[in-house]
Amino acid sequence: MLLCDVGNTSYHFYENGRDHKEPVTTFDPASVTEPVYYISVNPDTVDALSRLENWTDISPLIAWDKYYDTLGVDRAVLCEALDEGVIIDAGSAITVDIVRAGVFEGGFIYPGVRAMYKSYSDISTRLDYSFNFELDLDKMPKNSRDAISYGYLRTFYSEVMRHEGPIYLTGGYATLFAKIFKDAVVDQLLIFKGMEKILNVKGTSC
Amino acid sequence: MLLCDVGNTSYHFYENGRDHKEPVTTFDPASVTEPVYYISVNPDTVDALSRLENWTDISPLIAWDKYYDTLGVDRAVLCEALDEGVIIDAGSAITVDIVRAGVFEGGFIYPGVRAMYKSYSDISTRLDYSFNFELDLDKMPKNSRDAISYGYLRTFYSEVMRHEGPIYLTGGYATLFAKIFKDAVVDQLLIFKGMEKILNVKGTSC
Repeated sequence: MLLCDVGNTSYHFYENGRDHKEPVTTFDPASVTEPVYYISVNPDTVDALSRLENWTDISPLIAWDKYYDTLGVDRAVLCEALDEGVIIDAGSAITVDIVRAGVFEGGFIYPGVRAMYKSYSDISTRLDYSFNFELDLDKMPKNSRDAISYGYLRTFYSEVMRHEGPIYLTGGYATLFAKIFKDAVVDQLLIFKGMEKILNVKGTSC
Repeated sequence: MLLCDVGNTSYHFYENGRDHKEPVTTFDPASVTEPVYYISVNPDTVDALSRLENWTDISPLIAWDKYYDTLGVDRAVLCEALDEGVIIDAGSAITVDIVRAGVFEGGFIYPGVRAMYKSYSDISTRLDYSFNFELDLDKMPKNSRDAISYGYLRTFYSEVMRHEGPIYLTGGYATLFAKIFKDAVVDQLLIFKGMEKILNVKGTSC
């Protein structure tokens, strides 16, 4: 069964344990002839894909009463993948969602690395530093680069660690954040596990 | 004794328990004839003020070996004001500095309200919300506005509260952040207490 997670920059395909990405700008979804089950956070593609008979949007299969109206479909599907855990999707924005015994407890949104870098550097050129992911989180900073790195990373870490349960990291910056969350499981295929679970539960052949 | 804290937008004067501000763009420091003891984080004014005989920069009186090279003079002076505490200066950037038994333990920098708002809204129009300072920090968010408010405020709160000791709030957004840090002391004159302490310690008449 071919699955696809359509983002703002790429089509992320998955089948039989293997995944690959195609850029949104150049890839023609009509070039796929087999059935594809997909989700999309990209409003530009939703319309185009709805006109292709072999592309099936699985978002209507999600038990939406567990979530809230404006929650991104990708966040809901990631939550469907697990019964217990703190799910960090580190992309242009970072979403953190908590699932306990299969129940979505809520979640929050934190700026991604680029957005936060810009946030500091726009305030002052004196805050124009790349983040230090090797930072010792247990020491109060005594230089400017560490002071902003701590401001970005330690605040986030302190809040995430308050929530018990295993931490799962996914998204483009997952490996970078694994330097901070040393016990986290990095899983770039978590979204597909959620999609498979949604399709299985609903009795679709898999 | 007339004191002045020169910032990027205003001259903040203090004498005998009373303070007032004058805009950097229109105020002429040469119009003051009495002696002024000042600090400035504004590189544009430092040169002009150094040419006025009655304006004395007190930053050389700070025991800089307690701090680090690139620490803003305003942060060092705020730390001089107290022997014990967590000092939050909520301006365009938010600085958090820890002082224990008169020793500077280090500090960090977090984006101010405007910078962080821009950070979220630049990622996506779906994250374009003002922050909800009335947010219940003990509940995981279940709507988009609270999800970004929690991302900004709860992460910051969780980290600040890890550090024991009284919390002092100063700066333009102090009152707003007092909604989150309910036991904090709001003190817009803290910088002048630090300046007075520096001048006293060095034996200058006060």
